[in-house]
Amino acid sequence: MGDKLIPDVARLQASIEQLSTFRDAAKPGWTRRPFTEYYDSGREWLAEQMQEAGLSTSIDAASNLIGSLPGSEPALPPILIGSHTDTVTGGGRFDGIIGVLAGIEIARRLQETGIRLRHPLQIVDFTAEEPSEFGLSTIGSRGMVGNLTAEMLELRDHAGLKLADAINGQGGDVAKLAEQARKPGDVALYLELHIEQGPVLEQTGHRLGAVQGIVGIQRCRVTLEGAPNHAGTTPMNMRNDALAGFCEIGLAFERHCLSHAKDAVGTIGKIANEPNASNVVPGLIRFELEIRSLERSIVEAVYDAFAADAAVIAEKRSLKLSIEILSRSDAVQVEAAVLEQVMKACAAVAPSISLPSGAGHDANQLARIAPIGMIFVPSKDGRSHCPEEWTDYADVAAGTEALGSALLVFDAHGERVAE
Amino acid sequence: MGDKLIPDVARLQASIEQLSTFRDAAKPGWTRRPFTEYYDSGREWLAEQMQEAGLSTSIDAASNLIGSLPGSEPALPPILIGSHTDTVTGGGRFDGIIGVLAGIEIARRLQETGIRLRHPLQIVDFTAEEPSEFGLSTIGSRGMVGNLTAEMLELRDHAGLKLADAINGQGGDVAKLAEQARKPGDVALYLELHIEQGPVLEQTGHRLGAVQGIVGIQRCRVTLEGAPNHAGTTPMNMRNDALAGFCEIGLAFERHCLSHAKDAVGTIGKIANEPNASNVVPGLIRFELEIRSLERSIVEAVYDAFAADAAVIAEKRSLKLSIEILSRSDAVQVEAAVLEQVMKACAAVAPSISLPSGAGHDANQLARIAPIGMIFVPSKDGRSHCPEEWTDYADVAAGTEALGSALLVFDAHGERVAE
Repeated sequence: MGDKLIPDVARLQASIEQLSTFRDAAKPGWTRRPFTEYYDSGREWLAEQMQEAGLSTSIDAASNLIGSLPGSEPALPPILIGSHTDTVTGGGRFDGIIGVLAGIEIARRLQETGIRLRHPLQIVDFTAEEPSEFGLSTIGSRGMVGNLTAEMLELRDHAGLKLADAINGQGGDVAKLAEQARKPGDVALYLELHIEQGPVLEQTGHRLGAVQGIVGIQRCRVTLEGAPNHAGTTPMNMRNDALAGFCEIGLAFERHCLSHAKDAVGTIGKIANEPNASNVVPGLIRFELEIRSLERSIVEAVYDAFAADAAVIAEKRSLKLSIEILSRSDAVQVEAAVLEQVMKACAAVAPSISLPSGAGHDANQLARIAPIGMIFVPSKDGRSHCPEEWTDYADVAAGTEALGSALLVFDAHGERVAE
Repeated sequence: MGDKLIPDVARLQASIEQLSTFRDAAKPGWTRRPFTEYYDSGREWLAEQMQEAGLSTSIDAASNLIGSLPGSEPALPPILIGSHTDTVTGGGRFDGIIGVLAGIEIARRLQETGIRLRHPLQIVDFTAEEPSEFGLSTIGSRGMVGNLTAEMLELRDHAGLKLADAINGQGGDVAKLAEQARKPGDVALYLELHIEQGPVLEQTGHRLGAVQGIVGIQRCRVTLEGAPNHAGTTPMNMRNDALAGFCEIGLAFERHCLSHAKDAVGTIGKIANEPNASNVVPGLIRFELEIRSLERSIVEAVYDAFAADAAVIAEKRSLKLSIEILSRSDAVQVEAAVLEQVMKACAAVAPSISLPSGAGHDANQLARIAPIGMIFVPSKDGRSHCPEEWTDYADVAAGTEALGSALLVFDAHGERVAE
């Protein structure tokens, strides 16, 4: 059955290349920010592609572009295939994009083969998945599942535009968000193909990855306060050097992450030093750290060990330590039955492994109301969010083929798969 | 003899308070930047004080304000007492200022007591000792000793003004710098009273410090290059985290400084992280470090040990390390005979110790052509270059008294002191 949906690699490649031409040439890389003319033009082209593939297009209250295909059993809830076509500034041509285009290619193959699904199928281009100018990401998928709060809709970008008005300007209608919000049971299954954005598939020699789940993230802001003394006149034993304290605390954090390296990653990505002058002993360090894992207990174990060490080090160095938890998101688990089927679909196409997703996706939002399944394809050198972001077209096609196979299996077996 | 120059504490206090009123009230603290109207007004007032103290005033080619008193033996080279009255932005009321006002108070006491010196005496307010808008410090004292290069005179501030024009605008005449440049033998001795700008006197319970010398400084810029990977999708064992590498290298640097803590200080004061985002593994760290000591061999020992460790750590973590030496200034030694006399003069007035100067001063420049002597008074909480900068007036007076005693001893014994 799966071989009937083998995608056309050349057509997939052409569609990726064509969509990449809708970009803000004044910005680096392949920039297509949401709520811009470049994004609008890209969407117009995308809607045409959907229509050519036999889908009827519409824009929902959250301004997501949806291409719909009726099923043979209209009473069944739809299966969704989705991702996003916005990019970060200076981004690439694959992140998000291949997930939407794979969905359209599958619709084309359904049209060409005459295969009729039992479930309705919806191919979704979610609005603004990447961190937006409003300080929020996964805007469209949040909106679809009723997770855009009134407070979020009031967020403004640098020009003073309200998010609510941006969504309406993109064809949405925030007044109808509550009415249209999808609830548990409204969606049979959500499937997404995405680039890995990491080095694991490439470095382990696999072409497809069945995603086990999406890690939970805990982010903290840490402040270390010492004294900004003169670097020449303050003897070593009379210092409270916040940066030296940071060095010791940073190494302790890395050590605890390494001791859980099989199940977690942890990063100190952001640091600010005051007064940051070569002749002043650093008086104040602020840094941000994050811990990611599929297991909440492991996130907590790393955090607790870090916090305990940091307190001892700060005390020893007479530094004032404070830790503020900025956010804590739960991991999303892929149900065992779904993971098993996705893994089978992948393995039938190419060498595959199962792995966690270290990054968040639209699937995080959809998981609030439906079972999800995700497939990863390799990222060259593990890179993404940069102009060099690359996935071989043959791998995009392999991922699309596995996605199509999974779709057919789930469509045939219905909701029982998720039991 | 020393008791004849006991300063008038109330008069010293009043003069410090009065000079502090000449400030840029739009800026924080007690700001009097060189080449501004506030600096000019302060200098006018200063010139009047010098004249009232019996000094004849003049401005030299480098725009230094000089108050001169003839000696009884006009063939002898002058003894200079000097410091500066410019401040950093947001600075205090004591740094530099007390050295000039102590000189004027000594001139007043000479006038009041009728004591006649053998040597001519010059009280100097050096132009722009602090880091200036031209990216240069100790401008006036450099000019006096022929150490303002043509290149330096071409430096421009943010408004595009050339340093040469700024000096001329302040009453100097850069065309005469070479002609007026003082050479070895032109000055019998240079004396300076200054705040310690560090915590040593206060924390060890001493009121005066005889300065052993001014430390040499080596400054380096270090670059650590890793890879800016996704913080969620890059497993711990596939990272080249530049910030984690910095932590290890920073601790090694601190360890080597601590092992020479009796004779050196070392500081990493400045750090920049790229891309500095909470969800990206740091790809590039640039930091600046400095090492200060009276002994060149100790500076080198600390540097060599650091550089060796840094290379090993970078190699182990697959980071690209490069170290650029930004500057290397030699230490200035106070001649043993001068130090001994200054220490005696201090000890006769208040509990005193000898200590190095960890900061640079106008004395660094004068040391190029003459023997120097310096006296420190305590800085409350070791602080300077901030509005809270404070030294008790009784301590300023004690330092002024010791400075006066040292002046009388050197004047009496002439050049033999420096032999």
